[in-house]
Amino acid sequence: MKKKIITISREFCTGGQAIAQKVAEEMGIPFYDKELITLAARESGLSEEAIAASEKKRTGSLLYSLYTMGADLPLNDQVQIVQSKIIRQEAAKGPCVLVGRCADYVLRERTDVLHVFLHAPLEYRRARGLETGLLPQDVEQSKLDSLLQREDKNRASYYNYYTENRWGHAEHYDLCLDASMGQDLCVKLILLAACGE
Amino acid sequence: MKKKIITISREFCTGGQAIAQKVAEEMGIPFYDKELITLAARESGLSEEAIAASEKKRTGSLLYSLYTMGADLPLNDQVQIVQSKIIRQEAAKGPCVLVGRCADYVLRERTDVLHVFLHAPLEYRRARGLETGLLPQDVEQSKLDSLLQREDKNRASYYNYYTENRWGHAEHYDLCLDASMGQDLCVKLILLAACGE
Repeated sequence: MKKKIITISREFCTGGQAIAQKVAEEMGIPFYDKELITLAARESGLSEEAIAASEKKRTGSLLYSLYTMGADLPLNDQVQIVQSKIIRQEAAKGPCVLVGRCADYVLRERTDVLHVFLHAPLEYRRARGLETGLLPQDVEQSKLDSLLQREDKNRASYYNYYTENRWGHAEHYDLCLDASMGQDLCVKLILLAACGE
Repeated sequence: MKKKIITISREFCTGGQAIAQKVAEEMGIPFYDKELITLAARESGLSEEAIAASEKKRTGSLLYSLYTMGADLPLNDQVQIVQSKIIRQEAAKGPCVLVGRCADYVLRERTDVLHVFLHAPLEYRRARGLETGLLPQDVEQSKLDSLLQREDKNRASYYNYYTENRWGHAEHYDLCLDASMGQDLCVKLILLAACGE
């Protein structure tokens, strides 16, 4: 069965955004990343304060917040709820590629979605981070690795807070790829998995 | 870069063995599963008692056993050590597909090996298990699911005992696939990942 929508979750500096963009280009469908989804949330009326709060660290789970806070949900949770709504709206419009923001979990009930997770060894991500400017130059290797691991930890916390799944556990995704196999190969594998031929 | 050897780890009743066999056929290379590796271990002189012991449950880690038991390793650990040697021997002979027995971890130092993990939802595995006779007929669904989960737990314990990795965590594999995407598609994806084109 062909998959119309593709969600991509990824470790930091795996080149996930570039892979997602190429997949979207090849399929001729729109591409939404975290920034675009956040922009849409801002346009929908969320305050700057709320957007800023949404980047704060989370502990526990959204269900617990819903249970204890009732209508007065923290701002960061309000942002994720609006973003989830935007993800569902875009997915309802037609085929697209969605990167980050727990899109896989938001769309978990749909059967026409391919869920992808990208990871790669630290060495590969370090090189890529330096090349793309996502990591600072002239910093010792151990510091770069700490930056990579800290960002992964943030992404895992965000995902584990807003979903009932565990970030990076294979069972929650249709396709998990080591991005160090090469960007072009990853694009081909995603297209094959999505189109089924 | 082309991968000469493929290791396949899998949840119970994902059809991993059939997928591995098809991949081996397509590539025209030999295929070794748990039974064949165990047979080779038996032929290499391991006692029946040791082979039987190797199926027992494990807790802790092999490193801990090595540390505390020294030369008097439990029989099950001796079997895995012999099996690891056989896996390395077969891999040294040339291209092949290896299923189970922590082959991915045994061959972790080689860069020409593709490591695959197969998983699937319980519903899919239940149906497959009944179809192939790996699960008993005329048993209620919850009991079948318990059997699947118990076998997964055994495989995870085995893997987590003998390796420094965690079974089913995407980061340890090049390619993780939801086998419910279909056997033919899984074979194609593995071939594409292995051949890179």
